[in-house]
Amino acid sequence: MRVEGKEYRSIWHEPATDQVRIIDQTRLPHHFEIRTLATLAEACEAIRVMRVRGAPLIGVTAAFGVYLALRENPAGLADALAQLQGIRPTAVNLRWALDRAARTLAREPADSIATRALRFANKLADADSACCEAIGEHGSVLLERLWRGKTRRGHPLQVLTHCNAGALAAVDWGTALAVIFKAAAKGIPLHVWVDETRPRNQGAALTCWELRQAGVEHSLIVDSAAGHVMSRGMADVCITGSDRVSAAGDVCNKIGTYPLALAAKDNQVPFYAALPLSTIDFDWSSMAAPIPIEERGAGEVSMASGIGADGEEAEVRQYPESSAIRNFAFDITPARLVSGIITERGVVGANRESLLPCRERD
Amino acid sequence: MRVEGKEYRSIWHEPATDQVRIIDQTRLPHHFEIRTLATLAEACEAIRVMRVRGAPLIGVTAAFGVYLALRENPAGLADALAQLQGIRPTAVNLRWALDRAARTLAREPADSIATRALRFANKLADADSACCEAIGEHGSVLLERLWRGKTRRGHPLQVLTHCNAGALAAVDWGTALAVIFKAAAKGIPLHVWVDETRPRNQGAALTCWELRQAGVEHSLIVDSAAGHVMSRGMADVCITGSDRVSAAGDVCNKIGTYPLALAAKDNQVPFYAALPLSTIDFDWSSMAAPIPIEERGAGEVSMASGIGADGEEAEVRQYPESSAIRNFAFDITPARLVSGIITERGVVGANRESLLPCRERD
Repeated sequence: MRVEGKEYRSIWHEPATDQVRIIDQTRLPHHFEIRTLATLAEACEAIRVMRVRGAPLIGVTAAFGVYLALRENPAGLADALAQLQGIRPTAVNLRWALDRAARTLAREPADSIATRALRFANKLADADSACCEAIGEHGSVLLERLWRGKTRRGHPLQVLTHCNAGALAAVDWGTALAVIFKAAAKGIPLHVWVDETRPRNQGAALTCWELRQAGVEHSLIVDSAAGHVMSRGMADVCITGSDRVSAAGDVCNKIGTYPLALAAKDNQVPFYAALPLSTIDFDWSSMAAPIPIEERGAGEVSMASGIGADGEEAEVRQYPESSAIRNFAFDITPARLVSGIITERGVVGANRESLLPCRERD
Repeated sequence: MRVEGKEYRSIWHEPATDQVRIIDQTRLPHHFEIRTLATLAEACEAIRVMRVRGAPLIGVTAAFGVYLALRENPAGLADALAQLQGIRPTAVNLRWALDRAARTLAREPADSIATRALRFANKLADADSACCEAIGEHGSVLLERLWRGKTRRGHPLQVLTHCNAGALAAVDWGTALAVIFKAAAKGIPLHVWVDETRPRNQGAALTCWELRQAGVEHSLIVDSAAGHVMSRGMADVCITGSDRVSAAGDVCNKIGTYPLALAAKDNQVPFYAALPLSTIDFDWSSMAAPIPIEERGAGEVSMASGIGADGEEAEVRQYPESSAIRNFAFDITPARLVSGIITERGVVGANRESLLPCRERD
């Protein structure tokens, strides 16, 4: 992604200094800050407090975390895997990346295991970037078709998105936003409705920031306004990312995706999820089977942060602690509400028959 | 409503001092503050900046505003009506109260017009309180039936509500919350899911505050979590207020009500709107006909206020001004998603046939 004229990834390794670096997403939108992850503990912390977030990026960060652990202690593989596993329970990419790391490194001798782990993490990062770019390409064909089929010509194609499924949620490009970036690059006039995405406001803080950097026209709305926007004919298509897709095409994603998909259905607005195939959990047969839905702290809801009157960063308590707060982080959109799944191999149906052939054999 | 052991209304006239007083709702939940409205301009300001809000209370405040104008200038009726009209365009109760004030005061001589206006405003306030109490009674019968029909006994009846349709939205009792208060008084064990209600957070700031005062168990969730709560079988019924109901039973209410009703329908959770008959706009035939949907300032979305680290009130800018913000304040829930309308005359169907006999002839 291009930030003030310079190309960045969300995470990368600098060979010259042997440092793993990230864009610290907790500092956006007010500050663009690069942070070094020096140890496994720092990688774990970055995932936990969401300096890095987004299903694909969590997986890649975990791979770099394994490298940081092995650089310090070549015998530390099992411990590193145990520490990373489960920090964020819903996104399946974390487990996926750790499973691959385990398989790749299991028989590696101590003197080369760190080097091998770094090569693995770098390859995973490169593959994620290429994969997201392919998602963008396939999705942009879809947007082009919608744009050509639009009867109210002269108006931009109106895309609604939730949370941040951009370059910041992956290594580069992103998933839902990759589709938008690629469509914009093809010259399709676009306007993006960005859901604020309470309680961590990743839509307002991260997606708006990315769209500003890319020069894509957009408007921020509160989450609950998406239904109104669709009912007034102001959205042509919804695209979100996903943290885990069932083998039947059910889409687990940031809380609020399910009501969004309901509103899309009620207004005949197509609803797509964009994701790498690694996000499909073929062990999760369908939404009838339970998966862990992360519940996060009350402070994410009750506290708000930003820039105070003095120009300094500040935090305010919006609501007293005397009321209980439940902070469910994800919901599940049933496959019946999903028009299709945009993957690196093309757009596939949200059903078992279409998804099963995408299963990786490795 | 009882606040720290003392009975209050949201607005009242003190005969001893001839003062109109309100609970300043912009100060809650951190400060419970009474404010005097001394002039028509102050009444207009209180409605505009939402020191008073909620469809029924806006109407009653307008009536007191007319009194304040006429106390100063007995010839000021037309001007007062003109100033009050349209400050908040969506809630029909403002127009309803002003129409009635106009009819009541049109032929009143100058020496008695102020007294008559005060009597009118006081009567309107008393009628609103009685009306809301009746709404609560009728609705509590409904909750009792749902409670008795609940198969998972031992669990409280789970009610989900959006925004604030409590005593603070009316003169006393409220609409949706009146139902909850009356049901609680009948000994029905309740747990209320309170939607935060972005961008002004009236659920978190006002509804939670009212439920705390009343000792009703509740949990705050972000707006977009309501669908998840319902899909997990954690809500037995949804009840909201309304700012305007069409003659066909379409419910215009705080932004986010429509996706809530969609999620309720998708999970077979009954969805009710509770409102005084004065909220039904028989001139609004159905949602196919346009009504003004208020769009408010971007600052409501981008700024957050609360208590800072130093214990003082503070405001922070959450998002930079560089992204456009659209702040739609209301949406419309089609009658097909509404299980019924709880009024002071009982629960009626959300359709023309059921609503028409409720039309007031006066």
